[in-house]
Amino acid sequence: MLHHHLQAHRADLLGQIYRKMSSEAIDSLLVTDLPTIRWLTGFSGSSARLLLAEGKAVLFTDFRYQEQVRRETSGIATVIMKESLSKELSGGPVRLGERMALQADHVTWQEMQQLSSGLNGRKFISVSAFFDGFREFKHVAELEKMRRAVACSEQVLEEVIPMISPGVTEIDIAAEISYRHRKLGAEKDSFDPIVAGGIRSAMPHARPTTAKFEPGSLIVIDMGCLVDGYASDQTRTVALGRIPEEARRIYSIVRRAQQLGIDAARSGMGARELDAEVRSFIAAEGYGSEFGHSLGHGVGVEVHEAPRVGTAGTEFLQEGMVFTIEPGIYLEGRYGVRIEDMVVLGPDGAEPLQRFTKELIEL
Amino acid sequence: MLHHHLQAHRADLLGQIYRKMSSEAIDSLLVTDLPTIRWLTGFSGSSARLLLAEGKAVLFTDFRYQEQVRRETSGIATVIMKESLSKELSGGPVRLGERMALQADHVTWQEMQQLSSGLNGRKFISVSAFFDGFREFKHVAELEKMRRAVACSEQVLEEVIPMISPGVTEIDIAAEISYRHRKLGAEKDSFDPIVAGGIRSAMPHARPTTAKFEPGSLIVIDMGCLVDGYASDQTRTVALGRIPEEARRIYSIVRRAQQLGIDAARSGMGARELDAEVRSFIAAEGYGSEFGHSLGHGVGVEVHEAPRVGTAGTEFLQEGMVFTIEPGIYLEGRYGVRIEDMVVLGPDGAEPLQRFTKELIEL
Repeated sequence: MLHHHLQAHRADLLGQIYRKMSSEAIDSLLVTDLPTIRWLTGFSGSSARLLLAEGKAVLFTDFRYQEQVRRETSGIATVIMKESLSKELSGGPVRLGERMALQADHVTWQEMQQLSSGLNGRKFISVSAFFDGFREFKHVAELEKMRRAVACSEQVLEEVIPMISPGVTEIDIAAEISYRHRKLGAEKDSFDPIVAGGIRSAMPHARPTTAKFEPGSLIVIDMGCLVDGYASDQTRTVALGRIPEEARRIYSIVRRAQQLGIDAARSGMGARELDAEVRSFIAAEGYGSEFGHSLGHGVGVEVHEAPRVGTAGTEFLQEGMVFTIEPGIYLEGRYGVRIEDMVVLGPDGAEPLQRFTKELIEL
Repeated sequence: MLHHHLQAHRADLLGQIYRKMSSEAIDSLLVTDLPTIRWLTGFSGSSARLLLAEGKAVLFTDFRYQEQVRRETSGIATVIMKESLSKELSGGPVRLGERMALQADHVTWQEMQQLSSGLNGRKFISVSAFFDGFREFKHVAELEKMRRAVACSEQVLEEVIPMISPGVTEIDIAAEISYRHRKLGAEKDSFDPIVAGGIRSAMPHARPTTAKFEPGSLIVIDMGCLVDGYASDQTRTVALGRIPEEARRIYSIVRRAQQLGIDAARSGMGARELDAEVRSFIAAEGYGSEFGHSLGHGVGVEVHEAPRVGTAGTEFLQEGMVFTIEPGIYLEGRYGVRIEDMVVLGPDGAEPLQRFTKELIEL
């Protein structure tokens, strides 16, 4: 039934997108961004272009995906490409019109040049972030997929935390995470897991190494998976053995900051306001310059998408958006803490999708 | 010592690249392609631009990678970006000159537009496949990394084949492959493993499903890993239980075709000639239209790179190139077979990097 809902939702979205095109005097729009194509059509193949024109959607792919496209999509005309994209586009079932838009942020200069010489006489319009305002609002059927991704990743986290002990490596745990995500039904990780122990916990984007966990250290675990095309994202920081007093203190600050972010989020507030509230709390506790990244980001068919929830976030938070709240404090060369949940914004504020404890786990 | 060799090799490559730039009257070249940046500098971060100008290389990244860039590179000037790329480029340690080249196949139209308005007064030159002719020749130190990737993936294959039995799923085996790659020291898979049983073995790019293996079927396993930035790629097809006579026959044809490809490869021959030789052998056996993809592709810092070894391959095979030889026969709705090794081309022909048996394994 949810699948059926999603189909109706996609048809509805297409209608809204055609109206936006029309209001911007765009005759046709070539979608070159694979996650957006999957979000709009369900098609997950790696060779795909989606043409929107004359109130119709036409999917272009190659022979390898003939069967998959039938299985994954419905109500979308499909062309199995035999010639160059320009030729297929100009010979396709819909007219391109005079003003053809390309996704400047998702098309290479080369493809743009090829289209422009293959389809000459046209005015090419550059659009960017064209779908953000649609993608950031989640339908109940999309939310349901994200909840499944969250549930999968929470179970995996619960399984791997007890495996952390002195002598085990970051890579051991990262490998377990990826393995268990797939065994529990996820397509795959939504990003390479971050498992960062000791001084590496102070590096927000550390990659897992062969370093062994040591007693008296913090370990940041940032992980997520993809279920049915939708991503999850979560972070917990755990302690191995007895940790320094200051480590315990920054854990407590980050935990309160993260809760503050959840409690403060309101429909209608600026994304950067939410970031600022949490940031000033951390600054007041004395660690303002040790929180060097944004508070959060949208999650959907991509693990990073609109809205940006940071100092440069120009959007307003609205009901139906799903985004992360993930403050951190990083003391270079010593240790770091990050705690992250995804939230969905409803009429009464933010509801966290994760339920995993945020008490400090001491192993 | 090999690490040292690689540094000297990179310095040498940069010299050759500066000469090529000079011969094409390019004053500066902005490298936007991350695998090429890693290949040239060793830097593996996700935020990177490399500027080549005035016979110097300057790497631009952000604060998150400050420590990593120090650890991974040497002899390359680094700028930690605080402003837009255009501003950093024009205020950087080298002059851009009049004629600035961009990698058209690796830069978005948007970035091109931003650079062109931020750095106006310059002529932007579009180059594509600029580094292919360098990257496809492998240095002994690069080859050594690929051999380690091959050894890792061969051991994993040996470990997972015995796990295949009725009731086990494609995803189970794919998850084991990814897990074991990392446990054995690989950075990660070089691509998502393909484990395709039964009728899915006839789909060259099938994704693993929850389908259980069934007796009397073929299973295609296409996998590879990344060791120290270099990829491996290999395919074997195994039988579970008693398979139909025709399945056995196409296995034998593919096996002979693959050996023919290895034996026929010679320095100086056209890539498409090699493809044609194997293709006509398969056609003569009656399965010409069931071999729907190219014979092979180069492998290096990317799992797919130059040279293309297919009907459209315009290059000549030369000593020092590493590429795959992977014919297949796919009978839609029934079963398929593919066998793939990587080879390095030497003075006496092609040497396969894989040693894993190509006898039909019957489980």
